[in-house]
Amino acid sequence: MEDWKTFLFPYQQIVDELKIKLRGIRAEFVNENRRSPIEFVTGRVKPINSIKEKMQRRYIEESRLKQDMEDIAGLRIICPFIEDIYAVVNLLRQRSDLNILEERDYVHNEKASGYRSYHIVFEYTVQSVDGPTVLLAEIQVRTLAMNFWATVEHSINYKHQGNFPEVLEKRLQNVADTTYKLDEEMSSIRNKLAEYQDDKED
Amino acid sequence: MEDWKTFLFPYQQIVDELKIKLRGIRAEFVNENRRSPIEFVTGRVKPINSIKEKMQRRYIEESRLKQDMEDIAGLRIICPFIEDIYAVVNLLRQRSDLNILEERDYVHNEKASGYRSYHIVFEYTVQSVDGPTVLLAEIQVRTLAMNFWATVEHSINYKHQGNFPEVLEKRLQNVADTTYKLDEEMSSIRNKLAEYQDDKED
Amino acid sequence: MEDWKTFLFPYQQIVDELKIKLRGIRAEFVNENRRSPIEFVTGRVKPINSIKEKMQRRYIEESRLKQDMEDIAGLRIICPFIEDIYAVVNLLRQRSDLNILEERDYVHNEKASGYRSYHIVFEYTVQSVDGPTVLLAEIQVRTLAMNFWATVEHSINYKHQGNFPEVLEKRLQNVADTTYKLDEEMSSIRNKLAEYQDDKED
Amino acid sequence: MEDWKTFLFPYQQIVDELKIKLRGIRAEFVNENRRSPIEFVTGRVKPINSIKEKMQRRYIEESRLKQDMEDIAGLRIICPFIEDIYAVVNLLRQRSDLNILEERDYVHNEKASGYRSYHIVFEYTVQSVDGPTVLLAEIQVRTLAMNFWATVEHSINYKHQGNFPEVLEKRLQNVADTTYKLDEEMSSIRNKLAEYQDDKED
Repeated sequence: MEDWKTFLFPYQQIVDELKIKLRGIRAEFVNENRRSPIEFVTGRVKPINSIKEKMQRRYIEESRLKQDMEDIAGLRIICPFIEDIYAVVNLLRQRSDLNILEERDYVHNEKASGYRSYHIVFEYTVQSVDGPTVLLAEIQVRTLAMNFWATVEHSINYKHQGNFPEVLEKRLQNVADTTYKLDEEMSSIRNKLAEYQDDKED
Repeated sequence: MEDWKTFLFPYQQIVDELKIKLRGIRAEFVNENRRSPIEFVTGRVKPINSIKEKMQRRYIEESRLKQDMEDIAGLRIICPFIEDIYAVVNLLRQRSDLNILEERDYVHNEKASGYRSYHIVFEYTVQSVDGPTVLLAEIQVRTLAMNFWATVEHSINYKHQGNFPEVLEKRLQNVADTTYKLDEEMSSIRNKLAEYQDDKED
Repeated sequence: MEDWKTFLFPYQQIVDELKIKLRGIRAEFVNENRRSPIEFVTGRVKPINSIKEKMQRRYIEESRLKQDMEDIAGLRIICPFIEDIYAVVNLLRQRSDLNILEERDYVHNEKASGYRSYHIVFEYTVQSVDGPTVLLAEIQVRTLAMNFWATVEHSINYKHQGNFPEVLEKRLQNVADTTYKLDEEMSSIRNKLAEYQDDKED
Repeated sequence: MEDWKTFLFPYQQIVDELKIKLRGIRAEFVNENRRSPIEFVTGRVKPINSIKEKMQRRYIEESRLKQDMEDIAGLRIICPFIEDIYAVVNLLRQRSDLNILEERDYVHNEKASGYRSYHIVFEYTVQSVDGPTVLLAEIQVRTLAMNFWATVEHSINYKHQGNFPEVLEKRLQNVADTTYKLDEEMSSIRNKLAEYQDDKED
């Protein structure tokens, strides 16, 4: 890439705009004193090193980067409960500023590593000085617990890609499984409490 | 209004989104090492007191607020030179996220007070939890000099509406006239310098 | 309180300043390509309702609020690993802008509910229009996993204070215990991997 | 400089912290429904090119940069009226987080170019990962009108340093003089209005 700065500029703009927009969803719930299915939102432009590494791994040519790499602009929505993930996905589907191209449910179909999240790939129109441009971007929706696992796993895996002993891989998968059970347990406790309240009110 | 907080919420969202978007225009010029026609961008939701005062002055009923008050969400773009105002207006016209309804050129047709700015009223779609909603908003485009006059005049006039002696009104108008001449002089100096550079290069 | 807006203003200022300052720690690590012990930082001024509720529960009079309520301005630092909590605490101890008054290690001495975090209460000088003022504030340091538990537990407990069946309390405690074991397991995996790397390099 | 990124990091931190702090002054006035002597605050770290250019012009060696270049971290406070500049300077003098080393009154002793502003050079303690560090920084205080002149003059002068015809320099000075007269006239109108109000109330 001759000029990464120019290439990446509109992706940074997408991330900045969508952070404001998605945080606005939470703010709207809070403003109306309703429980928000969104706990917090983060975003980032993929670092140049990671883009290059992924280009090699996936055989993506520079000229195909815009069409073939979907997560250069990436947003993350973190939810308290598993059910909230699907509530958030529904909110995203009804927006007229995202043209959703693909959804991947890694919540109920976790990756081999143990990773869970709901991924949405979409087109977003950014208004540049030369007119409107359509670019790809990705939103990952996950619980706080899934985010704990994914973040810590990334931190551990970061500098050791490829050299990872199988025993430790297995142990990370076990942590992922238990993490998911904790998410389910939290939902179950919440539902039990609601039932208990209903009984009391009868 | 029963619930101003809920009524004003989407307007705050518009202001937050457009601040990011319009500052993005400046960032794009800076990123490419080009002179930006935008010096800075500000935004605000109209304070409730000002909304109420304007409702009385313009006989706007509460039920007509959404349709009849155009500046509840207000953005301001400040430019170095008068010519930049029109460059910015052209950039705004080509955006697909603003549906421009009206333009008022108070730059060349100043108000009686001496006030100058270019006003654009438009529809903007905000994505609420209940789906997309279209609301009105306003962008004012002006030079740094016009912004000096308008800000200081507002600060002076603020608590004295109606009680303003004519002599002082006249003096404020004179300041506005001189301010505009300074804007024109700055453009003229800039053009002369460009000519001088061209001559030297011949 | 006659005027909550004025009373709470400097606390909001403290939260805003410390968010910038504590996020700066993470930025410094990232800037030097070092792993950061801080994953993210959040902050909030305690909502008026929560202040009032706590005043009643703890018998705090309004005139004693400044001295006796330590978490009106509250910051939270979220870390990947348990060890990071203590690294962060050491960084906080060496700062000359925080005068630490008290530290409470709820990481290794969890509360009855199962709650874990490291709490630091300190004095911070805020520069008001009438001169420098010293106020109390609190920083909570915890892992992503502890933050998962505390956030979801708060979300569940929110509207049911006092009415919580013991069976569900017990289940929440169990989730807290397992969560902590996952934190320990992640640290252990990370250490094993480091040993494994060292062996390979010998 | 081997590593500009590391060298400039703490200066960016200072700018970020002081933007929050100085905007807090305005917020405090607004919160109490008082007129604020601060209209807005901006800040920037000096671009590397400008640092290098100034090093050559002022014969500053790299090893002396920290001690000898005072405006690597620069803040700007913009005021409505000339009098506000001195009110702001007084607020800055009473702060315990700035150790003021030097003040230069270019408001009443303008530079040869016509430039006016009040400059304050001070020490500020930034808390780095390796402990507290004291660095130099500068705040410029000026009116909206002075800011108009300085910004537009900078925009004109930007690419023509040294090649500036004397006739145009003279014209820029004249604009600066008139700009200052407009500032004085605005203060005078404001004072007249206050007198007029007092008379009416007698």
